Amino acid sequence: MLSFVCDYLEGAHPKILERLSETNMEQLPGYGSDRYCESAKEKIRAAAGCPEADIYFLAGGTQTNSTVIAGMLRGFEGVVAARTGHINVHESGAVEYTGHKILSLPEQDGKMVPREVRAFLETFFADANREHMVFPGMVYISHPTEYGTLYSLQELTDLSGICREFRIPLFLDGARLGYGLMSRETDVSLPDIARLCDVFYIGGTKVGALCGEAVVFPRGNAPARFLTTIKQHGALLAKGRLLGVQFDTLFTDNLYFKIAGHAIDMAHRLREVLHEKGCKFFLESPTNQQFIILDNKRMDTLAREVGFDFWMALDDRHTVVRFATSWATAPEQVEALRELL
Amino acid sequence: MLSFVCDYLEGAHPKILERLSETNMEQLPGYGSDRYCESAKEKIRAAAGCPEADIYFLAGGTQTNSTVIAGMLRGFEGVVAARTGHINVHESGAVEYTGHKILSLPEQDGKMVPREVRAFLETFFADANREHMVFPGMVYISHPTEYGTLYSLQELTDLSGICREFRIPLFLDGARLGYGLMSRETDVSLPDIARLCDVFYIGGTKVGALCGEAVVFPRGNAPARFLTTIKQHGALLAKGRLLGVQFDTLFTDNLYFKIAGHAIDMAHRLREVLHEKGCKFFLESPTNQQFIILDNKRMDTLAREVGFDFWMALDDRHTVVRFATSWATAPEQVEALRELL
Amino acid sequence: MLSFVCDYLEGAHPKILERLSETNMEQLPGYGSDRYCESAKEKIRAAAGCPEADIYFLAGGTQTNSTVIAGMLRGFEGVVAARTGHINVHESGAVEYTGHKILSLPEQDGKMVPREVRAFLETFFADANREHMVFPGMVYISHPTEYGTLYSLQELTDLSGICREFRIPLFLDGARLGYGLMSRETDVSLPDIARLCDVFYIGGTKVGALCGEAVVFPRGNAPARFLTTIKQHGALLAKGRLLGVQFDTLFTDNLYFKIAGHAIDMAHRLREVLHEKGCKFFLESPTNQQFIILDNKRMDTLAREVGFDFWMALDDRHTVVRFATSWATAPEQVEALRELL
Amino acid sequence: MLSFVCDYLEGAHPKILERLSETNMEQLPGYGSDRYCESAKEKIRAAAGCPEADIYFLAGGTQTNSTVIAGMLRGFEGVVAARTGHINVHESGAVEYTGHKILSLPEQDGKMVPREVRAFLETFFADANREHMVFPGMVYISHPTEYGTLYSLQELTDLSGICREFRIPLFLDGARLGYGLMSRETDVSLPDIARLCDVFYIGGTKVGALCGEAVVFPRGNAPARFLTTIKQHGALLAKGRLLGVQFDTLFTDNLYFKIAGHAIDMAHRLREVLHEKGCKFFLESPTNQQFIILDNKRMDTLAREVGFDFWMALDDRHTVVRFATSWATAPEQVEALRELL
Repeated sequence: MLSFVCDYLEGAHPKILERLSETNMEQLPGYGSDRYCESAKEKIRAAAGCPEADIYFLAGGTQTNSTVIAGMLRGFEGVVAARTGHINVHESGAVEYTGHKILSLPEQDGKMVPREVRAFLETFFADANREHMVFPGMVYISHPTEYGTLYSLQELTDLSGICREFRIPLFLDGARLGYGLMSRETDVSLPDIARLCDVFYIGGTKVGALCGEAVVFPRGNAPARFLTTIKQHGALLAKGRLLGVQFDTLFTDNLYFKIAGHAIDMAHRLREVLHEKGCKFFLESPTNQQFIILDNKRMDTLAREVGFDFWMALDDRHTVVRFATSWATAPEQVEALRELL
Repeated sequence: MLSFVCDYLEGAHPKILERLSETNMEQLPGYGSDRYCESAKEKIRAAAGCPEADIYFLAGGTQTNSTVIAGMLRGFEGVVAARTGHINVHESGAVEYTGHKILSLPEQDGKMVPREVRAFLETFFADANREHMVFPGMVYISHPTEYGTLYSLQELTDLSGICREFRIPLFLDGARLGYGLMSRETDVSLPDIARLCDVFYIGGTKVGALCGEAVVFPRGNAPARFLTTIKQHGALLAKGRLLGVQFDTLFTDNLYFKIAGHAIDMAHRLREVLHEKGCKFFLESPTNQQFIILDNKRMDTLAREVGFDFWMALDDRHTVVRFATSWATAPEQVEALRELL
Repeated sequence: MLSFVCDYLEGAHPKILERLSETNMEQLPGYGSDRYCESAKEKIRAAAGCPEADIYFLAGGTQTNSTVIAGMLRGFEGVVAARTGHINVHESGAVEYTGHKILSLPEQDGKMVPREVRAFLETFFADANREHMVFPGMVYISHPTEYGTLYSLQELTDLSGICREFRIPLFLDGARLGYGLMSRETDVSLPDIARLCDVFYIGGTKVGALCGEAVVFPRGNAPARFLTTIKQHGALLAKGRLLGVQFDTLFTDNLYFKIAGHAIDMAHRLREVLHEKGCKFFLESPTNQQFIILDNKRMDTLAREVGFDFWMALDDRHTVVRFATSWATAPEQVEALRELL
Repeated sequence: MLSFVCDYLEGAHPKILERLSETNMEQLPGYGSDRYCESAKEKIRAAAGCPEADIYFLAGGTQTNSTVIAGMLRGFEGVVAARTGHINVHESGAVEYTGHKILSLPEQDGKMVPREVRAFLETFFADANREHMVFPGMVYISHPTEYGTLYSLQELTDLSGICREFRIPLFLDGARLGYGLMSRETDVSLPDIARLCDVFYIGGTKVGALCGEAVVFPRGNAPARFLTTIKQHGALLAKGRLLGVQFDTLFTDNLYFKIAGHAIDMAHRLREVLHEKGCKFFLESPTNQQFIILDNKRMDTLAREVGFDFWMALDDRHTVVRFATSWATAPEQVEALRELL
């Protein structure tokens, strides 16, 4: 059955499997110290314009978020995030499990508003009772957000400025970063992110890898003994090559950007189809996720022929659903959807 | 200087100090196994109408909240609480430190609305992604709330019913329970609380003790090895007598209720004075905390002569402040305030 | 350079890569709910003779240990383990990070002695101060151990009996389980393990997979909401297929056992070579790891031509080193070693 | 019945209760910011010769240990301690509950040997696998130890030197510090401890207070936001005066040292009595705890007339028991014991 349920339906980009096979019988040291990890790091440093970066490869998004956050916060600190942030909703409390509160703020289409972040921090530091409260020790944003939306360069610059003023690191969750960077509606580049954030990750799992996220501390600013922290969080693969080979492949010949760009192309076709068929958008995002509102009856009928994600009930009779494209979406699939609708 | 800053300004009710002195040189076993702890438990069981109750004495509110919550939740569960709940705002993230998320809900004057709690639970258990979310494993309420407000018997009954329907324990934080029970505007008794809650505590620190909270599991339903959990949380006093003697005294001859009733009488006089002087109430509570709105200039002047608590900025020119009475408030103090205003 | 450093030098068994490629473009649901995971589970249930088993796939050993242990223990409990147990030495404190103490016992060649486990438990439960101590809530063993040694069926039966008598689950870390099952010197079968343990895992990472461990609760006795616990620990892969396809392949046509058997054959040849060359054994194990004692000077010379693992200093002039074979060891490699020595 | 079970059988030194009564109705600010806390801190700074010290008052020993340790360690670090250390045995895993491993070392009569601590640290930092291990981030000693023994000034100097060489803080648990300082067999003064340790605490609970331990960071080296950490651990009393008044009293007119000295005098008489009666010492300590070996039959008989602590079974027929004196032990009690024996 045709499916637009999410962007991790297929395995890996074929080039990745090819490289895994080619390198398979090489004897390599473990835990991320192999030559493919090194090569991948060099390519990422070059692509992000941060030659001094510390880079680590982890397996998945929740793991990466909780390891990075716990690794950077002091015990009495929490992390500021949008109420809809992935860490606040869909990670089974992984951050709190490490002992840290998420200080959730209101959002607009998944994004925090810089002046509201500033107001929150100012209010906190002016509060006479702040010693009885959780200190804001980091600002977390996702880019693209859970709604597929993107921060503008101005917004990112503002957030970065606020964080630096308050001496709080800015962490960007880039689980779908490729789709954000290749959006036709963004003015944010990978070097911008490296310049403005204190730590971010380049998502592999949702952008063509079997698994894997590349965490970048752009100014060589990884916390002390971060490899030990990764191990302690159960996030250190013995065969680090699995991640090294994948990211080395993704950052060779711009593969990461090409396949993300393809997903964006498919998302534009998808938007056209949805518009053409008169679908009402809940949120028409600049990336690979599109949110439309379906009448529940139509939704049930449609669900028999095409896969999509139930996002949330809008009211008693309507539901917001998500259609996602990915590096693997074929034009024929979008065409098939057009015919179905 | 005259002060209405909070309800823990003085030491202990003199009768408590007297009993501590009288019993001081008795050699008693440690860790809460002494005869005064036993006697206090019996008196509390009688007062709350729960002869089978398991009772433990801890030193303070934050400690009690985090120990009870962590002791009752399973690893994957969180606690539902009002956004303004003490555990969510003013306990330095003590609950999250034990690994559990607070699932915060909107509130009205510090209280959660039963139908919103039900809606939250129904939505959660209907969510297809709930396995990626934090399970609601307990409902936490404070009574009186942080705003001095009280749940009605109907509201408490409704919350209890919802919790039982979803098989989730209901935990009542009674740091100021005495003031709630002696309010002239409540229909909730201590046996009602014992009947409707799965665990609650009777606050001593804010109601006449030097320190101490009595945790009650009304149906003998304490978690296995709860004493060990208390110890693990650093909450087990070697000289448990300090808590036993205090609660034994408070529950002898209704002292707890008498002194709480006195605080309520003083709160009524205080309300009269504040009304008489034309103060605008932000929230006129049925217990010992009163919230008024002061023009910032008047606030600064007043603050030179009387102590009160800065609650929050209302707008650029006005501030919400709190005046609290306690077991120790003398009528002369209220009179002195009248003259000041 | 020739290397016997460890059993995770190469990638995956070629058959695994082949199957990953063949299934790559299938659209599959995420988080372990795909058909390959289901098929793998059925094959494991059959191989282990436990048709009711709950099975979960995680990515690596440390992750699996801390997730299983934290998922099964109550807050006040710890885990009994040999002093040399992997969780006690080489997992960066991952278990303690989840809040649980490791109650370490003496060992003999990496194994705990059943009567010492019994004595420990009896002493604990007879201790008048036990409420101030960490309760033993699980017994952890590794099989093969970190020294390549194996529990006999009698020892395993004894440990299982002790655990059941004290109502404590027995957890077997099988990171190298294949090599244990195929040892020529074992009388323990996979169904024996399923019958005698309460939870165990079948290691993939060190036995031919790119990554992956299969956790088995043999009597359908997984803790409530264990998938959520896995997610909370950052151990749930979005593309669960990566693990499903691998284990499905390993448990098709006995591949897992065949390749583990090959490693054992190679280990026997290795032992012969080491004996022939007059090496002094520190521990001649029945599985794929062999420990010999080298004069430091010879060790340095040898290290220039062949890879092995420095295990520990024996005295000022001698070092214990480890040679490991694996599913990927070629007879030619052992032959090359013979010539080198 | 006569009892030498422990040093916390009675309430508080009468002078403390007197001062609590005298100051009871003063209105004081909360959370340790009152004038009695300030005065107590000044007196402790003077007594310990560390005018720059940061000082905090907590309620009990386990609480203090876990709060200090968690507050000072980074996430990937553990604490080095004697196998018999209180934190390793009798605190219900409170340290591990905060996520940190205890790296336990062998001991002699409760004390770690400096050269063994050095060897442990050297071995750790030379270990090629140390990134997979828990980093030693603190050395914990108790003084007096759980066996009543004391480090000599040379030993303490050696440990301090080692810690400074490895840049690891030295933490001294002084739950019974008074008895150590007043021992007739010590050459260690309070200023020595302040000079050689990075953090230590002066025990009140076991030396005449109702509860309370004074944590001293002698060079103003408290971790950032330590008050918030205390709150987060549930260890911040609202009525901080309870601790302030007690320590202010104990450090007025040398009361702390006088009453500890009395306990030492009583311990010497007790030793004489035990020797005179031919008791066999397991360990004759220089402080207030004495350990003798009793034939089980005699032990049972004796236990009907005098309280003592069962320490551990020595063999099938003998038990080690502990007799403790305290600030409250009367000469008549020792005399009564003489007659009993």
